[in-house]
Amino acid sequence: MSTTEIRRRGGRSGSEARRAARSRGQGTLAPYISRKIPYYEVLNEEGLAIIEHNADTILEEIGIDFRDDAEALQIWRDAGADVQGERVRMPRGMCRKLIQENAPREFTQVARNPERSVRIGGANTVFVPAYGCPFIHNLDDGRRYGNIEDFRNFVKLAYLSPSLHHSGGTICEPVDLPVNKRHFDMVYSHMKYSDKCFMGSVTHPERAQDTVEMAKILFGDQWIDPETGKPRTAVINLINANSPMTFDDTMLGAAKVYARNNQACVVTPFILAGAMSPVTVAGTAAQTLAEAMAGMAFVQLVNPGAPVVFGSFASSMSMQSGAPTFGTPEPALVLYVMANLARRLGVPFRSGGSLTASKIPDAQAASESANTLLPTALAGVNFALHTAGWLEGGLAMGYEKFIMDADQAGMMQTLMGGVDMSENGQAMDAIREVGPGKHYLGCAHTQANFENAFYRSPIADNNSFEQWDAEGRQDMAQRANTRWKRMLAEYEAPEIDPGVDEALQAYMRRRKESFPDSNI
Amino acid sequence: MSTTEIRRRGGRSGSEARRAARSRGQGTLAPYISRKIPYYEVLNEEGLAIIEHNADTILEEIGIDFRDDAEALQIWRDAGADVQGERVRMPRGMCRKLIQENAPREFTQVARNPERSVRIGGANTVFVPAYGCPFIHNLDDGRRYGNIEDFRNFVKLAYLSPSLHHSGGTICEPVDLPVNKRHFDMVYSHMKYSDKCFMGSVTHPERAQDTVEMAKILFGDQWIDPETGKPRTAVINLINANSPMTFDDTMLGAAKVYARNNQACVVTPFILAGAMSPVTVAGTAAQTLAEAMAGMAFVQLVNPGAPVVFGSFASSMSMQSGAPTFGTPEPALVLYVMANLARRLGVPFRSGGSLTASKIPDAQAASESANTLLPTALAGVNFALHTAGWLEGGLAMGYEKFIMDADQAGMMQTLMGGVDMSENGQAMDAIREVGPGKHYLGCAHTQANFENAFYRSPIADNNSFEQWDAEGRQDMAQRANTRWKRMLAEYEAPEIDPGVDEALQAYMRRRKESFPDSNI
Repeated sequence: MSTTEIRRRGGRSGSEARRAARSRGQGTLAPYISRKIPYYEVLNEEGLAIIEHNADTILEEIGIDFRDDAEALQIWRDAGADVQGERVRMPRGMCRKLIQENAPREFTQVARNPERSVRIGGANTVFVPAYGCPFIHNLDDGRRYGNIEDFRNFVKLAYLSPSLHHSGGTICEPVDLPVNKRHFDMVYSHMKYSDKCFMGSVTHPERAQDTVEMAKILFGDQWIDPETGKPRTAVINLINANSPMTFDDTMLGAAKVYARNNQACVVTPFILAGAMSPVTVAGTAAQTLAEAMAGMAFVQLVNPGAPVVFGSFASSMSMQSGAPTFGTPEPALVLYVMANLARRLGVPFRSGGSLTASKIPDAQAASESANTLLPTALAGVNFALHTAGWLEGGLAMGYEKFIMDADQAGMMQTLMGGVDMSENGQAMDAIREVGPGKHYLGCAHTQANFENAFYRSPIADNNSFEQWDAEGRQDMAQRANTRWKRMLAEYEAPEIDPGVDEALQAYMRRRKESFPDSNI
Repeated sequence: MSTTEIRRRGGRSGSEARRAARSRGQGTLAPYISRKIPYYEVLNEEGLAIIEHNADTILEEIGIDFRDDAEALQIWRDAGADVQGERVRMPRGMCRKLIQENAPREFTQVARNPERSVRIGGANTVFVPAYGCPFIHNLDDGRRYGNIEDFRNFVKLAYLSPSLHHSGGTICEPVDLPVNKRHFDMVYSHMKYSDKCFMGSVTHPERAQDTVEMAKILFGDQWIDPETGKPRTAVINLINANSPMTFDDTMLGAAKVYARNNQACVVTPFILAGAMSPVTVAGTAAQTLAEAMAGMAFVQLVNPGAPVVFGSFASSMSMQSGAPTFGTPEPALVLYVMANLARRLGVPFRSGGSLTASKIPDAQAASESANTLLPTALAGVNFALHTAGWLEGGLAMGYEKFIMDADQAGMMQTLMGGVDMSENGQAMDAIREVGPGKHYLGCAHTQANFENAFYRSPIADNNSFEQWDAEGRQDMAQRANTRWKRMLAEYEAPEIDPGVDEALQAYMRRRKESFPDSNI
């Protein structure tokens, strides 16, 4: 059977396939990944125990600063920590005990479409778009500041990407909107243009509260879980440490709001190794563990049982220029170690993604991203922020990069599905049928399996040089450019209850009007 | 301490560093990698045992064709196999036993510079340039047929790349030379322009013999190892199976020449899954194991104890077009499984590299290559052919791609060094010295360690957007273009004994003149 025959017998034409994909919505892949492959671990028990010991030494001897938050310091004092000024020293084992006795090992973040709810922790991986970029980049405009239209575009692209399980948070900063109000439009965009889970505002406790109020409106009578009597976890939020060994009042304020409402906090030491931590993997790991444990333990003191995620973000550094570097081997080693430590602690883990220092979606961007995303998959990251779009050390959100990364995330999903060891997977009938010197294209097993046998990239070019030449010699970024434009052109919004939509808009209007410099 | 200070105090200027590198030769990295990180394994004992059972079933029930080689068939008959025509069926366990009782678990391939000899097998990894490309590609010429100057250029570039441990074999086909004589010039180029290990000709038994004769001249009185009385292993050679389940007379003829001279044979089923094997990972793995075991057992029958390497090359396939696809998840799973099976068998393993279907050194090339090279490192490949230069499914050898891949191979070397758990690696003094809210740039530990703390890519751009913009907005391929040109301009050949050189040239001249269509 020729490959043309294969296509004719079993393949769908492009337009048929697109129609089918639309009618299925984005449900063709699972709402999140449940891994069937082992974890990759680089340290043995002895090495891990040393790092855990060192982290406890940091907490006990050096301590963590909780800045400008008298309530936080009082909470620590009441819990029995040694508080001197803003410095909190925790007795050896205290943070670990608080976390292990209270924090859930895994939890569900609910989406307004229940089919898109995600399970965070355990053997599960959730791929999430990039976060926090002031600029956007695409082949048409180059690099420029992001705006709310870009923000909506990326929400739509994530909604349309089966390999991305989450809508993310501050996908890009909509700098055309006032700083003190843009969180409304960001949160609303996630709610309106997608039905996947999303992240809340953390830039001020009031904005965290706004996020919670809007989630209450969105979920209505689904907000409270009747089984627990507590709010369902509908928002997940990024609480960064100011490494080394410091939490500031903004982050602590947002963490308290979310914790008290049973919303999830991802406590992440954000580390440029060499500047915010030692230049070594083991030193960075111990400090990250200490900081993350302090933050997660604090959340458990605020509201025992509130969901937390152990976050780690560690880049290496160019010792020539001081610039952060990504996709290098040292951060990958940190990632493997931290994922292992999180499993031992018994909490979900956030790290990884598709990180790069490149300004454009070139080979540097692709290899640095792959050298982050593959460890993300193998190490067992549960919440993989920055999986799609990251460029320029997080300063820019790339349209083409987003498409390329989503493709890679799809590959990771297949990889994490592992090896099919069923009778069909073993394929001994095929080997018997074909025999030496023949080919498998036409055999019964190939015909029965070819359609889903191999991951299909929508943007890789596997054609002959001649065909590629005839089609205009496009590189991958150019093909990705074509793809995101077609996706946006074909986008159809998920339905939302008009009453809920109106209530959300009314809330935003009212709150925006309450600001002195109101100019909605 | 500012980063400028860091540079001033400890950094070398570019020209100083280049001078230092030249005076050290290429010895700044180890001659090969000895891994300090665990293997990544995707299957459990049960899964591996099933595949081993299936491979034995293939050998016993279906058999392997040994084509057009009466001697090979007689060797099998004498060994007790069931030979019907060209079909050889081996009793269950026979091949495994032949291999385990005779083949070395690891061996040394000697280089003319003993410091560049490589240990193949065990915990060691050797990165080797790509092999067999008829075309070359660079940004200046685009894609064109390769010639002997290209061949020499790549030998020089591999010699100058500390992360590449080997000179490779048919780096590109020098199509400007007659087919029946170009092997002389290829082998001579490796001997003359590099002092790293190299691969021999396999396209005809006579050419294999020429390779051996030239190696004898090159090594002179070092050719025979006085301890064993046998020739040292100075050449390693690629013996591909014609999958499915076939070896042809060309490959068998070359294998016999090399085996009888104690030179190494890499027995590699070359598989485009879906065409030459079933479309499944487990089916491809069983067939690969069966074919590789048959080939390696044959070598042991020819000369018990001759070094063999278990090879696996498996690509996936576009089921739309029939084109091979690379860097997809399925071949990565095959790679992890095969490496594991090779360890269980107790022989060195060859697979992986930096494979891609892309025609140019773009993001597709980079991500597909990374998705092959990182599994190469984690799975435990011992002989990583195709690590540098591969483009277009092996049809083209890329100059820029070579530079990019060599950079990635350097990163793998660091990764495989694992985590430094020494006191200095733990860096607790640094954490104590700095404390909350400060930075590590100026601390004693950073000053003592920064120069070698992080892998430094020579072609990644980690600068600010503004600086990158001011420097011409180059992508990684353009920076790689600058680099290979500078490397070739600065190349200095390793010394070779003039008498040996003259003897090699005399041998070639004599042999070339013996061909009827001689036009040297």
